[in-house]
Amino acid sequence: MTLSPAQQARRDIRDGRHTGHSRGLALGYVQCNLVILPRAQAFDFMLYCQRNPRACPLLEVTDPGDPEPKRLAPGADLRTDLARYAVYRAGRREADVTDLLGLWRDDFTAFLIGSGITFDQALERAGVPTDRDRWVLRSTLPTEPAGAFRGPMVVTMRFLTPQQAIIATQVSARFPFNHGAPIHIGDPAAIGADLAAPLFGPPVDGVPPDRIAVFWACGVTPQAAAEAAGIDLMIAHAPAHSFITDLLADHFCQP
Amino acid sequence: MTLSPAQQARRDIRDGRHTGHSRGLALGYVQCNLVILPRAQAFDFMLYCQRNPRACPLLEVTDPGDPEPKRLAPGADLRTDLARYAVYRAGRREADVTDLLGLWRDDFTAFLIGSGITFDQALERAGVPTDRDRWVLRSTLPTEPAGAFRGPMVVTMRFLTPQQAIIATQVSARFPFNHGAPIHIGDPAAIGADLAAPLFGPPVDGVPPDRIAVFWACGVTPQAAAEAAGIDLMIAHAPAHSFITDLLADHFCQP
Repeated sequence: MTLSPAQQARRDIRDGRHTGHSRGLALGYVQCNLVILPRAQAFDFMLYCQRNPRACPLLEVTDPGDPEPKRLAPGADLRTDLARYAVYRAGRREADVTDLLGLWRDDFTAFLIGSGITFDQALERAGVPTDRDRWVLRSTLPTEPAGAFRGPMVVTMRFLTPQQAIIATQVSARFPFNHGAPIHIGDPAAIGADLAAPLFGPPVDGVPPDRIAVFWACGVTPQAAAEAAGIDLMIAHAPAHSFITDLLADHFCQP
Repeated sequence: MTLSPAQQARRDIRDGRHTGHSRGLALGYVQCNLVILPRAQAFDFMLYCQRNPRACPLLEVTDPGDPEPKRLAPGADLRTDLARYAVYRAGRREADVTDLLGLWRDDFTAFLIGSGITFDQALERAGVPTDRDRWVLRSTLPTEPAGAFRGPMVVTMRFLTPQQAIIATQVSARFPFNHGAPIHIGDPAAIGADLAAPLFGPPVDGVPPDRIAVFWACGVTPQAAAEAAGIDLMIAHAPAHSFITDLLADHFCQP
């Protein structure tokens, strides 16, 4: 049986042949951010997603205890098919793990949240490079709380030329369930973007004079909530190590 | 204090001066379908909405017992500010009521779901009439179940000229959180649209030869689930008697 590029990428991750981030992998397939919580927190977290749809567009919720995302990737296993996981206990990020086989519980519910990596191929086709000048940053934009979940929005920042910024705004707007259009453009300080400590990406040198900083809401936002709200136990993808689904991004402008 | 057209419309409904449907009222404001359920069913219903986002785009969920939709219309009261409510018990629709003051309970959670009435003004501006040839119908398209919730999709059907159909597809696609683009175009039988018994609208005479039937997923779908699944207790808006929010539709292409 021939595997699709998405199935092959998941297989490579599961078997340990691919250990890095997921950008550029299976280009053109919808990628998802992952949040795993005990069932007792599931309602509050769904409400948090509903109230913060730019950062947390919810694409699938698994049944408690079931690690298979039956709708987005039948046969996949959320315990093994991401390259790197971040584990939060009492609001602190512990050492990353490369699978969840030892941590999985019968009451774990997994939430798959749209990711901006999804529209990378559409950006590339439109002449906007996606392999450089790109970071995941904390901002001071507040999210709307639900239950214990609260905290600042995490954003993806890209440095683009003015023309690229105009094109990227139009292209990403076609993907409203993968963060959609930018939430900010221009001065990083206006949204309190923390350039000093990127959550993913190299040190930031400041915006080059011929570039504009463009910001999208990011699916790493729930991890900031885990920290800010001291959530007891939450497991997430490590930033930029997303889950690759079987859906073609071009088929998913509207779910 | 001057009331906005949305606030004035809600006031007219609350005070009994407006008793009919909400189409054409406060044109240009986001309108919402309403579902009210006991808290015990809230998680399953949120999951149902998440799994059927074309029919059930969730715009707000209130806290249990609180009839005020604080985000979409601060100061409004969901018990009085719709003109007509449908009450389902054990899957059967009882006589409609015009307020919920006698029925409200401390554990009721309200769900506000985007409505296609929202893009009527945008359609009118684009030359597509919205005041005629329009129905709410059952189809045989299945929805994806969650908990007890399951059943067929309810659709809005409009008869349009070919040019209007092309324009309406483009315009509605700009409102992905109010059902978005059509789910079907052409033969009603292809989706099992029940022309014999419209849930709202006059008897249907068949598609005129110079028109095309265009179908959108409809926020009345949860009411079909209440019937098909025999939900114990659910209160909803009566079809086409939607809740008018303070949000301007043009500001809400992306939430």
